[in-house]
Amino acid sequence: MQLLRSTDPDFAARFARIVNDRRESDADVSRVVGDILARVRIEGDGALRDLTARFDKHDLDNSGWQISLKDCKAAYKALDKDLRKALDLAAERIRAYHEGQLPVDRDHVDEAGVRLGAKWRAVDAAGLYVPGGRAAYPSSLLMNAIPAKVAGVERLAVVTPTPLGEVNPLVLAAAHLAGVDEVWRVGGAQGVAALAYGTATIKPVDVITGPGNAFVAEAKRQLFGVVGIDMVAGPSEILVIADNRNDPDWIAADLLSQAEHDPSAQSILITDDAAFAAVVEDALDVTCADLSTNRVARESWDDFGVIIVVQDLAKEAPALANRLAAEHVEIATDDPEAIFAQIRHAGSVFLGRHTPEAVGDYVAGPNHVLPTGRRARFASGLSVLDFMKRTSFIQLDEAALARIGPAAVALAHVEGLPAHAKSVELRLK
Amino acid sequence: MQLLRSTDPDFAARFARIVNDRRESDADVSRVVGDILARVRIEGDGALRDLTARFDKHDLDNSGWQISLKDCKAAYKALDKDLRKALDLAAERIRAYHEGQLPVDRDHVDEAGVRLGAKWRAVDAAGLYVPGGRAAYPSSLLMNAIPAKVAGVERLAVVTPTPLGEVNPLVLAAAHLAGVDEVWRVGGAQGVAALAYGTATIKPVDVITGPGNAFVAEAKRQLFGVVGIDMVAGPSEILVIADNRNDPDWIAADLLSQAEHDPSAQSILITDDAAFAAVVEDALDVTCADLSTNRVARESWDDFGVIIVVQDLAKEAPALANRLAAEHVEIATDDPEAIFAQIRHAGSVFLGRHTPEAVGDYVAGPNHVLPTGRRARFASGLSVLDFMKRTSFIQLDEAALARIGPAAVALAHVEGLPAHAKSVELRLK
Repeated sequence: MQLLRSTDPDFAARFARIVNDRRESDADVSRVVGDILARVRIEGDGALRDLTARFDKHDLDNSGWQISLKDCKAAYKALDKDLRKALDLAAERIRAYHEGQLPVDRDHVDEAGVRLGAKWRAVDAAGLYVPGGRAAYPSSLLMNAIPAKVAGVERLAVVTPTPLGEVNPLVLAAAHLAGVDEVWRVGGAQGVAALAYGTATIKPVDVITGPGNAFVAEAKRQLFGVVGIDMVAGPSEILVIADNRNDPDWIAADLLSQAEHDPSAQSILITDDAAFAAVVEDALDVTCADLSTNRVARESWDDFGVIIVVQDLAKEAPALANRLAAEHVEIATDDPEAIFAQIRHAGSVFLGRHTPEAVGDYVAGPNHVLPTGRRARFASGLSVLDFMKRTSFIQLDEAALARIGPAAVALAHVEGLPAHAKSVELRLK
Repeated sequence: MQLLRSTDPDFAARFARIVNDRRESDADVSRVVGDILARVRIEGDGALRDLTARFDKHDLDNSGWQISLKDCKAAYKALDKDLRKALDLAAERIRAYHEGQLPVDRDHVDEAGVRLGAKWRAVDAAGLYVPGGRAAYPSSLLMNAIPAKVAGVERLAVVTPTPLGEVNPLVLAAAHLAGVDEVWRVGGAQGVAALAYGTATIKPVDVITGPGNAFVAEAKRQLFGVVGIDMVAGPSEILVIADNRNDPDWIAADLLSQAEHDPSAQSILITDDAAFAAVVEDALDVTCADLSTNRVARESWDDFGVIIVVQDLAKEAPALANRLAAEHVEIATDDPEAIFAQIRHAGSVFLGRHTPEAVGDYVAGPNHVLPTGRRARFASGLSVLDFMKRTSFIQLDEAALARIGPAAVALAHVEGLPAHAKSVELRLK
């Protein structure tokens, strides 16, 4: 953990180092992934069979390529009642929030008599990567699948690794609840490639979303343009802006809730009271020791944790927050709005003392798939728009063309495109 | 040119070949571009100086790194009056259409007492690539720059190659009109890299858009995630759906207006009358011979042109159009709406006999930067949203947390994330 004070003479330089530190894997996975993508594109199912045997240690022809929707339904029915209610509440709230994102079509005739508009349509098919093992989160499946279904995607295919053939019943239950149409037992870069290119068995999709390890992220990055993808994802981060009137245990738990995700996750506290910062740090040590995720959380906090002590929260925190452009920003003050109004770059903001980031991970409604690694400067959380596209349209009659056509002719000529000019000129005669 | 009839026994196979034919460069530009990006990232201005001397044959320190806004204004003032009026009309109409795209923020309290919302903000800075030489289109500058300015981008930087130091006054005039803030004389992958990473002289931006050659397109692709980019662009295409009640000269000009862009461009005609198709083909040959762009248009039509004769336009054309997912679709019939209603995948649609695609390139208002190479299946034309991002926000009070918090606790436990659970549990006590 690093402690910085905004009054330190080297503060600017140290803060800049934190801003520019990319916690992302330097390992050159790019070539390995490129080879896997090429194999799947050329060899199709055969490559999936081989790579699944090698990485996940099971034979697709024996274990079955697909997990049936019946099995997903059974997994849902078999859930403990309270857990099922929690999952239902999450799904219902996520659905309601995302329905509010559905875009409105445009269609009007302007004063020149030109009809102009835009029609939004869902993509035909979407693919969703669901990690296996520890990171197989049912909440993550809901957060990706529900926006696709709200958008109107007719075919939603999940790929997920099932190491040694084992499946995670919670993920199947969530797939049932979200209305997933297909679940394939393939993972890694090969699973992403199968969705993008299609094989004899798995039909291709138009958009691929969902979290994964460095190989999955790199596969999505390389396939951007072949299909639509959501965003390049890196390790998660939280920025907590808190005054000294918070319970230090609460703030410590918030910082740890990010740290426990991944040794590369980053938790940052900005506060205006050095004594409060010290108490939070102590509380964090105590709480962390008791967590089952202690090892991961400890490593993240030790390596990437930061506490910044400033003189004036409202004056200094927003500028620092905008530089960090963090995935999650908590503002734990009495008047969070005063700081929020100055925040330009953040994935999601959690306002006030009773809004721990974890409610946003599960049940608040907005998407928990958010831009990481300072990408909130230019990127947004996952939404129904990631599963839709817009077709613009234009309609002119003779009178409208007479009004605006001559300008098009002039511009086409000066750009050296005579057929463009001619296509308008002929209609003006 | 290929002629297909939907009644041919091998129609399905031949059509599938056209759909799957990727007219994109196979040349391995990826490594060259990767090397250039790395050089600019590490060496900064020095790399720009060297690469500009090598590729554009001028010395940045002599010719000047920047073109001044004063020079842009002078270029605008020096325009021929009719041309200036045409450019003004284009800018005004593009601005009006894109203002209609500005998204609306959300902020409401739901029945559980949870405040939920989303705030849209412009990115701080955007970069725009403007090609040099033949493809330096002022219309293209307007189509990229105006949406950025409508979005509210405060700093808009153009990079453009000036081979041998020469600049295109039309592009400078358009830069003035669109309100561009900086114009840099660097091009190619190095220009894109300078915008993405920043150098001592050029400050980095958050989003990069704009057309370019294969090196520019690959640079943008590789930098996706470091910055936001619009979309991977490939050669342009048009699909004209026309019955035999059209003037064949008009349809021929429309097909040529796409073909004259690029030898890899593709023009496709779907009609229900083989005799009409033959007349259009003859008209195309005659018109093409007279064009100053004859060589390019001829090559494109010979290599990639397609005429498809179907039995019933309204019944067959929409399904074919959806498979092609073309950048531009013209529907030249009396009732274009009947076909348009069935089209799911297209970049932009031009309705009726008096709407040549070229009006959309210049003055209609909607963006002419559109998804190519079947990407209309999942991508949209450029819009103000490409220069904005959304921050979601959540606010709970004690009562709201008591309602939905327990579900978050249950889900956090089952996902093996105890600090997540604790951050909520502590506040529920």
